[in-house]
Amino acid sequence: MNRIGFQMKVKQDVIPEYKEWHRKVWPEMLDALRSHGWKNYTLFMRPDGQMFGYVEVPDTFQASLDSMAGEEINARWQEMMAPYFEIPEGSFADQNMIELEEVFHLD
Amino acid sequence: MNRIGFQMKVKQDVIPEYKEWHRKVWPEMLDALRSHGWKNYTLFMRPDGQMFGYVEVPDTFQASLDSMAGEEINARWQEMMAPYFEIPEGSFADQNMIELEEVFHLD
Repeated sequence: MNRIGFQMKVKQDVIPEYKEWHRKVWPEMLDALRSHGWKNYTLFMRPDGQMFGYVEVPDTFQASLDSMAGEEINARWQEMMAPYFEIPEGSFADQNMIELEEVFHLD
Repeated sequence: MNRIGFQMKVKQDVIPEYKEWHRKVWPEMLDALRSHGWKNYTLFMRPDGQMFGYVEVPDTFQASLDSMAGEEINARWQEMMAPYFEIPEGSFADQNMIELEEVFHLD
C-alpha cells in the first residue's frame, strides 16, 4: 500500500457545484475506484478552491491513475468535472493531480 | 474517529533541515502523539514548502491539538520547530495549522 498526497485546484466561482457533485458521486464511479484498490480516499478543500487529496493505493499513484483511466465511467466523470478545475484546456483533472512528497509518517 | 486535512508552510530555505528532523522525530514525541490518539498521520510537502497534513484523531482537530499542547515534549518540539515555519513571530506551528474542509470520502 502506498499513501498518496496530491493537490489540484477548483475554480473559485464553481466551488458550490463542485461540492454538490461530490456529495453524490455516481455509485458506478465509486465502484470503479474500489475495484482499482483506491482506499481511504478523502478530498479536502481550502476556501479558495485549492484542494488536497489523500488516498491509499496498491501501486504508484501514476499506475493507479492509469488503471482508472481505462474505465469508461471514469472518462465520463472526468469529462463532466473538467470545467470545474484550473487545468489546461482540453485536459482532465486526473491528468493534473500533482503528487506531493511524503516527509513524515506515524502509523 | 475524525479524518483531518490541514495545511501549514515551511520556509523554503530551511526545507532540507526540516525534512531531516522529520526523518528522526524524537521517540518521546511519537509516543505522545500515539497516546493522544493521533493515527495514520502523514505530512506531505510541495517543493515551495507548502505542506499538507492528514491525520485520524479521536476528537475534533482543535481538541487533539489542545491535548498535545499539554505535553512537555510537544512544547519542546514546537519550540525547536517554530523557526522553520512561516508563522507569526512568537507563535508555534501547532497554533497555525489551518484545517481544511472535507468535501469527499470513500472508505
